[in-house]
Amino acid sequence: MQKLKHIISTTQLLNRPLQEHLFASAAQMERDDAQRTLARPLSGRILATIFYEPSTRTRLSFEAAMQKLGGGVLTVENARDSSSATKGESIADSIRVISGYADVIALRHFEEGTAKIAAKMSPVPLINAGDGIGEHPTQALADIYTIEKELGGREGLRVALVGDLLYGRTIHSLLPLLCLYPGVQIDLVSPAQLRLPAKYIQHLERKGVNFRESDKLGASIKSADVIYVTRVQKERFESPQEYEAIKDVYLIDSKIADKLKRHAIIMHALPRVNEIAPEVDSNSRAAYFRQAKNALYIRMALLNYLLA
Amino acid sequence: MQKLKHIISTTQLLNRPLQEHLFASAAQMERDDAQRTLARPLSGRILATIFYEPSTRTRLSFEAAMQKLGGGVLTVENARDSSSATKGESIADSIRVISGYADVIALRHFEEGTAKIAAKMSPVPLINAGDGIGEHPTQALADIYTIEKELGGREGLRVALVGDLLYGRTIHSLLPLLCLYPGVQIDLVSPAQLRLPAKYIQHLERKGVNFRESDKLGASIKSADVIYVTRVQKERFESPQEYEAIKDVYLIDSKIADKLKRHAIIMHALPRVNEIAPEVDSNSRAAYFRQAKNALYIRMALLNYLLA
Amino acid sequence: MQKLKHIISTTQLLNRPLQEHLFASAAQMERDDAQRTLARPLSGRILATIFYEPSTRTRLSFEAAMQKLGGGVLTVENARDSSSATKGESIADSIRVISGYADVIALRHFEEGTAKIAAKMSPVPLINAGDGIGEHPTQALADIYTIEKELGGREGLRVALVGDLLYGRTIHSLLPLLCLYPGVQIDLVSPAQLRLPAKYIQHLERKGVNFRESDKLGASIKSADVIYVTRVQKERFESPQEYEAIKDVYLIDSKIADKLKRHAIIMHALPRVNEIAPEVDSNSRAAYFRQAKNALYIRMALLNYLLA
Repeated sequence: MQKLKHIISTTQLLNRPLQEHLFASAAQMERDDAQRTLARPLSGRILATIFYEPSTRTRLSFEAAMQKLGGGVLTVENARDSSSATKGESIADSIRVISGYADVIALRHFEEGTAKIAAKMSPVPLINAGDGIGEHPTQALADIYTIEKELGGREGLRVALVGDLLYGRTIHSLLPLLCLYPGVQIDLVSPAQLRLPAKYIQHLERKGVNFRESDKLGASIKSADVIYVTRVQKERFESPQEYEAIKDVYLIDSKIADKLKRHAIIMHALPRVNEIAPEVDSNSRAAYFRQAKNALYIRMALLNYLLA
Repeated sequence: MQKLKHIISTTQLLNRPLQEHLFASAAQMERDDAQRTLARPLSGRILATIFYEPSTRTRLSFEAAMQKLGGGVLTVENARDSSSATKGESIADSIRVISGYADVIALRHFEEGTAKIAAKMSPVPLINAGDGIGEHPTQALADIYTIEKELGGREGLRVALVGDLLYGRTIHSLLPLLCLYPGVQIDLVSPAQLRLPAKYIQHLERKGVNFRESDKLGASIKSADVIYVTRVQKERFESPQEYEAIKDVYLIDSKIADKLKRHAIIMHALPRVNEIAPEVDSNSRAAYFRQAKNALYIRMALLNYLLA
Repeated sequence: MQKLKHIISTTQLLNRPLQEHLFASAAQMERDDAQRTLARPLSGRILATIFYEPSTRTRLSFEAAMQKLGGGVLTVENARDSSSATKGESIADSIRVISGYADVIALRHFEEGTAKIAAKMSPVPLINAGDGIGEHPTQALADIYTIEKELGGREGLRVALVGDLLYGRTIHSLLPLLCLYPGVQIDLVSPAQLRLPAKYIQHLERKGVNFRESDKLGASIKSADVIYVTRVQKERFESPQEYEAIKDVYLIDSKIADKLKRHAIIMHALPRVNEIAPEVDSNSRAAYFRQAKNALYIRMALLNYLLA
């Protein structure tokens, strides 16, 4: 397979051999990390995290990934308010200059499509660390990795996607990857106002994926192998009353968690607010903190892949 | 002795063998640093500095300490305004996620008691880098180390604590450690409005420590071995007049400094504003910059102790 | 030659043997970097970037330089709003404390002359990374290095300095270095309101440098070896109309770029806004991105020189 130069979109990752390579690499790094035998293959290399909108967690996991591999880090935490940006510099110029200092760039931007434009200007590998309502491919890859690690790549997985399916970038980036699983069944559980956009529905249909839509979680509880919960944001509703009426509808508490299949897992991209009760954390099905840690190893595998 | 997992409170450090171990380690690191023969025992390990209130100096000294030992650093300088915090994530979740990326956490928080709560959630060692009006144990340890380095652990030391004894966290964290010295005598010198709180007075009484209170520095000048000066903050007074009336009462200038015992030392946790005249800096008794540097080596010793 | 301890002013760099040493060192580092054979001579050493006004690009290039040489970095991105500064600490105290944690300091300040004052307080080497309308010596050195690398140190170079010559710190720092070239000719091209200040004109006269002033670019286009463009800032004009009337007068587009001598180069300290059309970027004469990268290697050479 041809090596990718940049990681911009999930569609680049719809490639089983590449996924398997990255998953094996991530798993090896996790083992080496646990035993403190990690090699430092990126010693002398530098990652620049350029964030035009804040995302502390994503930034830290990229920076930790680079450092664990022996590399250094340059941080631009508030690129939107940086001196160059406020003087009116184009993002193209910023990328060209910073790519003179760094060997790889992780770019977060508030506008869909920016990562793609930036990559064209960048002589060094660029990773899309989220671009507005667009994509967040490394998160999606870490999610798929989590599912495989926890459940194996079994046929006929049933995955319930729960909450805000309209704006949830995480879900949108994950869907095409889920469709690669033979016999996957997808439950789309959301309030009527926050249903999955038509283009993703059509994608499911085109791929011949078995799916159903509902505004109730009930039917998914006993059958799902994966419950992927997303945050329903107050700002998405026309009135506070509308929000109040549904905000707790999908709350996962211990009562629900205990009814799940024995080997089912609960996922969440975090931060959570009210979607999963803290009492669930001690339930072995609660996979969200393991999922966050998997993102670290996936990012290590990707940095190593791009710079090797 | 049982090894500490977290460093949350000065009371954990009321342990002479532990102190002696850390002081010997700090002294060795200082020697090695001067000769550039420092080992890099924390190579491949990562410190996360998570600061919910700013403290540039404390942050930098932790970050320098970690790097001098070969480790890497993740910085969250304004955790209160971080993307996760503003989305409503609990500190418990933040700590659990970040502890997946880092091997040790230095936490600064504006609220007393937060470090203790956070440590309970953290699978990796957590160091309290100051929590509101609560504690700042690594500062207190560096202070005691400074006293021992400068004066030896002599019996019957007379220590004058000067300035704001009511709100001065530094002083509160230091007092229990001072009480360990046999025959220590403590002068409490403050304006009437800023006297040491009753609970600390009672502690001194319980420990049978010889102390006296005064609102004048005079009696301490000729007898003190240590003059520890704290900043008196304008905001603590009911009226600007009240503040103006006393702000310069404890100013240490060359005239006072020269009257001190020959081997006495002047300490200050810095930043200073008007408490010590710059002309004093060249006086050999001015120990505050040495004190700041000692904090670096104490933090190196602590990081090494926690991660070894 | 006596080794410099601090780098505060361009006048310290008016020294051909030192320049040649630094340029050779920068060139060697660039070759080693390209082949990934860079040594890590500053391993275990720490650079503190203390920026009292933001300059993302300058900060990143210093931090990249230090890390490429194996060193670590402490960042104070907004020193003006740092906890110590807001508590009223003097810059002298800040420098003294931070110099206990770092082996070298890069200081950016909004006030002319601060770097010089700070250096007096600093037991470790301090580099002026720009002080208000004062100096930016490492930028000037990188500019001269760029000219020599691109054009050789040829006699009789004709250099056109274009745009805001009144406030352009870059130009002011560069001029004394340009005067070292035998037979150099300087075209000063600016709007009448933004002419080079008298003291620099007098410097040129004293040095017997051949120069001419103009408010038109025309005469320079065919004769210049170097066109150094600076940004004309709106705020410098009394009325928006005045600004609008001249803002595009010196715009370098492909039409102009193609008329330049074949081996001429276009320079800009970046960020650019409207001074050079993006279409020029692909012209081989466009040297500004190479110039930005040269600043990295010059800073590496300087850090290595100061700490060796």
